[in-house]
Amino acid sequence: MGRRQCRRGRPHRHEAQPRGHLRGDEGRVGSVQEVHLRRGGDEGRPGLLRAEPPPLDDRAAQQRAQVQAGARRRRGGHQPVRAEITGAAVLLITDGQVLAAGDAPPAPADVLVDGDRIVAVGPGLTAPPDATRLDATGKLVVPGLINAHTHAHNNLIKGVADSVTLEPFLNTGPAMYLGRTPEEQYLSALLGAVEMVKTGCTSAYDLFMALPSPSIESVEAVVRAYADAGVRALVAPAVADLLFYEWVPGLMDALPDDLRKEVERRRPASGPDILKVVREGLLRFHDTAGGRVRLAVAPTIPAQCTDDFLLASRRLADEFGVGLHTHLAESKVQALSGRRRYGRSLTRHLHDVGILGPCFTAAHAVWLDADDIALMADTGSSVAHNPASNMKVASGIAPVAEMLARGVNVALGTDGSGASDNQNMFEALRFAALLSKVRSPDYPGWLTAEQTLRMATTGGAHALGLGDRLGQVARTSTRSISARSTTRRDSSSSAKPVAGSRRCWWAAASSSRAAASSPSTRPS
Amino acid sequence: MGRRQCRRGRPHRHEAQPRGHLRGDEGRVGSVQEVHLRRGGDEGRPGLLRAEPPPLDDRAAQQRAQVQAGARRRRGGHQPVRAEITGAAVLLITDGQVLAAGDAPPAPADVLVDGDRIVAVGPGLTAPPDATRLDATGKLVVPGLINAHTHAHNNLIKGVADSVTLEPFLNTGPAMYLGRTPEEQYLSALLGAVEMVKTGCTSAYDLFMALPSPSIESVEAVVRAYADAGVRALVAPAVADLLFYEWVPGLMDALPDDLRKEVERRRPASGPDILKVVREGLLRFHDTAGGRVRLAVAPTIPAQCTDDFLLASRRLADEFGVGLHTHLAESKVQALSGRRRYGRSLTRHLHDVGILGPCFTAAHAVWLDADDIALMADTGSSVAHNPASNMKVASGIAPVAEMLARGVNVALGTDGSGASDNQNMFEALRFAALLSKVRSPDYPGWLTAEQTLRMATTGGAHALGLGDRLGQVARTSTRSISARSTTRRDSSSSAKPVAGSRRCWWAAASSSRAAASSPSTRPS
Repeated sequence: MGRRQCRRGRPHRHEAQPRGHLRGDEGRVGSVQEVHLRRGGDEGRPGLLRAEPPPLDDRAAQQRAQVQAGARRRRGGHQPVRAEITGAAVLLITDGQVLAAGDAPPAPADVLVDGDRIVAVGPGLTAPPDATRLDATGKLVVPGLINAHTHAHNNLIKGVADSVTLEPFLNTGPAMYLGRTPEEQYLSALLGAVEMVKTGCTSAYDLFMALPSPSIESVEAVVRAYADAGVRALVAPAVADLLFYEWVPGLMDALPDDLRKEVERRRPASGPDILKVVREGLLRFHDTAGGRVRLAVAPTIPAQCTDDFLLASRRLADEFGVGLHTHLAESKVQALSGRRRYGRSLTRHLHDVGILGPCFTAAHAVWLDADDIALMADTGSSVAHNPASNMKVASGIAPVAEMLARGVNVALGTDGSGASDNQNMFEALRFAALLSKVRSPDYPGWLTAEQTLRMATTGGAHALGLGDRLGQVARTSTRSISARSTTRRDSSSSAKPVAGSRRCWWAAASSSRAAASSPSTRPS
Repeated sequence: MGRRQCRRGRPHRHEAQPRGHLRGDEGRVGSVQEVHLRRGGDEGRPGLLRAEPPPLDDRAAQQRAQVQAGARRRRGGHQPVRAEITGAAVLLITDGQVLAAGDAPPAPADVLVDGDRIVAVGPGLTAPPDATRLDATGKLVVPGLINAHTHAHNNLIKGVADSVTLEPFLNTGPAMYLGRTPEEQYLSALLGAVEMVKTGCTSAYDLFMALPSPSIESVEAVVRAYADAGVRALVAPAVADLLFYEWVPGLMDALPDDLRKEVERRRPASGPDILKVVREGLLRFHDTAGGRVRLAVAPTIPAQCTDDFLLASRRLADEFGVGLHTHLAESKVQALSGRRRYGRSLTRHLHDVGILGPCFTAAHAVWLDADDIALMADTGSSVAHNPASNMKVASGIAPVAEMLARGVNVALGTDGSGASDNQNMFEALRFAALLSKVRSPDYPGWLTAEQTLRMATTGGAHALGLGDRLGQVARTSTRSISARSTTRRDSSSSAKPVAGSRRCWWAAASSSRAAASSPSTRPS
């Protein structure tokens, strides 16, 4: 298979086919270039944009169909959750204050959605009688927030760690989630997805982990969870071909013989075998659920990977044209041990191996110097900033102001709930803005509410390779909208809707199912 | 009037009179020393503990009665909110997990409350048939959180400031709340009180501000708001006898003549006149609403007060045996300008003037050195730590670990919503714990979940002068309880219930009215 280009900055283009029944605002709809609505779903309703899947063998095709049908759960008498988007009809959101993007003041407007696309934003829009209507009076309609870094497997270990740094926390990983069943992986992922959508987040870049190594069933479980929850996701199995004990200098040597043997027994599969599973996942599940769930490649921590493994990961990502995501210099231990191992900074080493580039997202990036930041900017790489996690496991405060000044695309994440306690992107916004103000007295570098909102919207969209389609409430955007009360006690004044905001009253995800879960929405 | 001793550490003692009708747990009730239940209220139901008010003249007595009746609002056709506690009957909270105090693991227990007192905590408690019952299944029953530093007047200016330091923020005060009517003061205070009780906080130390100086009507308005909301409060009018422009070195000199004259016109009343109002407030409103609302004295920022004013404030607090509260070294500007003015640290200066002592609470205390911390500890003074505000207006990170290690009583506050966006004490817990971890790599000093909870409970109780009565779910504690879901998505595991907790499902304040506002409670 030939090398494909990363989607980032090279959007899929689809022929414009505005639906004829959108009345009253044809002028505004005008030259929508991205609307591609075609028949799909069992009921003949308009379906969602989806990329053509790669050819599959019979088993893979069957598995894929099962995910898309979402009609099974592995155990017990659970009612199946519907996985596939059923084909969203027209949705009209009326009378809200629309915060179109991070740097635009909110303005009264309606939002018209057809299928998975926003086709008009403006006052006085109309829709056909059978359209779903959502009254957003007293609410702020914001772009669906994008969680640019999380870990599905963490949602079952909330709150277990306190006052530990990253390395001891990671070292307890096997005790917390070694050998989970796919059902457990599914439930953990679903829990996080539900928390996200309930707090205004509609898209996630998820580096789920399965120990000792991911199986294709674990990949399927996480994909299925996001498909079921109605959240847009980039699912990247977090993989490594070295043991945790091998990259922290001196750690393996410090173990007594019996414990060293025990650790050896937990060795992950070989690098090629691991990437074979990731490759199978890409073949089976990439661009599934109407294109809403995609896959990416994530050699989790560079120091825990051989260079061969890093390079093979890069090639795999290139082959499928998908994203590449690693943790980068999250802790001082990582930064210093990397320098000791490579004789240069981790960022420089990743650059020399060929990891950096427009499809690359580095999580955390706390311990980057000016040269590292320049490398990130000049290669078009993205950073996923995780302020709450950086505080909780005491990693430090990332130089976000310097990154933004140098032109790095910075996105925002919660990180996994094991290291940050929750999946609330509104809290992440607040932590990002406030944390920047104790990092330095250099106030022009303090993150404003608008800057943090851009990180959580357009910054995240770019990191997910969907910068042309997500992150704004604007026509041609894929429908990912969230609405917040502007009148409730803990919302800010309308003059500054972002600064103090935290509570999300309902969130409309990128599927009609999630939108319909709001009490103020009726199913289409 | 002779000097009274501060209540702190010298609790009111009342004769034990356990109610005869508490069946099934008399053994546990046993030797409750603090229960004092006497008849009160219109309906002959058991009333609340209340200290005898000082003698009042006719007008003051009338005013006080009006507050206690709470039967009026100044304008319009509003329905009056009931101010007085109606006399709570017996309340039995069953089947919760009780987190009795900051350092105790949660355990299954019932909680029996009679009037305003917890009379028993343990499994299988019973109550008379007419008692109010509250099913706390799946909930964590925690002590009502105590907000040790807030500003009622800030609740109408949420979110207006972003990326400014403290001094520019304070300088905009007149533009934001000069000349507010008592009705506006009432509404602003009520808004904050409601937010607090909805987020698990049942007691507050409130330094409300009225510009140019407080009137007795503004004091009454804030007292009435807390009485109406059912929140326990220590209301301290924040006062100063110097202009903001007079204490920041060079600021007054830098103004052109016309602006200097404009500023002069905003000069507050004279020190004696201001303290006369505070004194009148103490006479009229201290220990009102069944002892639930009390007053304190707050020369707001030492640098904005003459030494004569500070000393007179101290004497006034001593005369009534009430608390004294100031901001202390919140910003670097305050700390440095204080050193320039006094030739020593602010803390040392306050000590020399006679401010420090067991009744004294210092808000913020960010810029304290080891000598200052020793002075605070050795005088038995308290600190109210406000992590979110210290981040938002970039004051810095207070040396809480050093204070705790030296034996300072540290409480927790939200600060006013103008500088911290909300009144959510669960968020304050989270900010306190996480912020400590980026202050220093010295991990033994990182605040644990248990330490922050102690700050927000027993630490706050001590700062409010109610260390013997609040801050724990234990018999002899005044009823101030909050319950949280232990099963909802954003709660932590039961092994560590505090670390990740944020959402409060209902809160029972110290009045029956507030408790009855919970959907799972029926009014007694």
